[in-house]
Amino acid sequence: MIQDDNDVLEPPINFSTVDEGIFRSGFPQPPNFPFLKTLQLRSIIYLCPEPYPEENLEFLRSQNIQLFQFGIEGKKKASSSAASSIPKQTILEALKVLIDVRNHPVLIHCKRGKHRTGCLVGVLRKFQNWCLASVFEEYQRFAGAKSRTTDLRFIETFDVVGLRDCLYGIIHHYYRLAYYASKKRRLLLYTQAQQDMQTYRHYKP
Amino acid sequence: MIQDDNDVLEPPINFSTVDEGIFRSGFPQPPNFPFLKTLQLRSIIYLCPEPYPEENLEFLRSQNIQLFQFGIEGKKKASSSAASSIPKQTILEALKVLIDVRNHPVLIHCKRGKHRTGCLVGVLRKFQNWCLASVFEEYQRFAGAKSRTTDLRFIETFDVVGLRDCLYGIIHHYYRLAYYASKKRRLLLYTQAQQDMQTYRHYKP
Repeated sequence: MIQDDNDVLEPPINFSTVDEGIFRSGFPQPPNFPFLKTLQLRSIIYLCPEPYPEENLEFLRSQNIQLFQFGIEGKKKASSSAASSIPKQTILEALKVLIDVRNHPVLIHCKRGKHRTGCLVGVLRKFQNWCLASVFEEYQRFAGAKSRTTDLRFIETFDVVGLRDCLYGIIHHYYRLAYYASKKRRLLLYTQAQQDMQTYRHYKP
Repeated sequence: MIQDDNDVLEPPINFSTVDEGIFRSGFPQPPNFPFLKTLQLRSIIYLCPEPYPEENLEFLRSQNIQLFQFGIEGKKKASSSAASSIPKQTILEALKVLIDVRNHPVLIHCKRGKHRTGCLVGVLRKFQNWCLASVFEEYQRFAGAKSRTTDLRFIETFDVVGLRDCLYGIIHHYYRLAYYASKKRRLLLYTQAQQDMQTYRHYKP
């Protein structure tokens, strides 16, 4: 939380903490790298189709940060179509990476940290059981005047129940078994749980 | 992070995570209590002079949450005066409570989570060495159209260097001593450090 030297830190635009070990922002530029170092990131979820810039890749290598790229196009014709440009399956894949604590601390970003990032954080909040009014309030806080009704509809209709049930099923199953297990048996259960988590990661609604 | 039942959670208005163990919001209402429970708060920093409502006090007692109240008046004549209504000494006292990890997880709130809360979070960001542009961006994200130039000036002119130096001095002193100390001597140092932290808590610029 506290810096030891007097160098002023510059977070990326639209930076914020989402939850413990989860951050969001617009595209990080080199002047933001000293700040990003303080977060001790383990991974970055990048939501644009454009290749990651070389100097950003260099920074990731130097900090041993894993890049998860989910190429979602920025919206082209904002007013001409009522359909969302956000693909559900891609956001679901990104959500699975996002809620896996082994990837934390993680930074989600797109270009401006408003729409694509806002949609992913929105479905995370639904996964966390937030009411829709609060999810929308948060989306709008970051999108401001650029808020899109299609994004709000995307978040509203996105189904997280199946994924949550799948995850809870696995956790509950092993939690119950491990309760009565010996130390050796617990290690075996751990390996089985890892395999089940692979299934969960390939979950499709 | 995850709820185990299907009850939808309703965070207070303008709720957000500020940093690890630090949250901000507008005034929490009873429908927000189930959500607040998930944060496992140890304390609340309340920035208004009005008495805390009985049902909120009841909730705090049931959850064993400590209340720190710093009565700062809401601004009355927004446009007639260039002076800030935020008292520096009070914000400094609140900042000292806020950065003390023994009070974490902590929720900061005022009435709407915009001005008084925005000023306290603003000086925290200066304490964390954030550049002023990023501090202002964050203030404005929550204040929106209600952003006040007097608040931004308050944050800009607030001096955190003295407090930081005082805190770092204590930490550095004991860190160095404890490095070479025996277990028994370390306990003694711990007691002395606690006393020094009292001095720090009474720090006045």
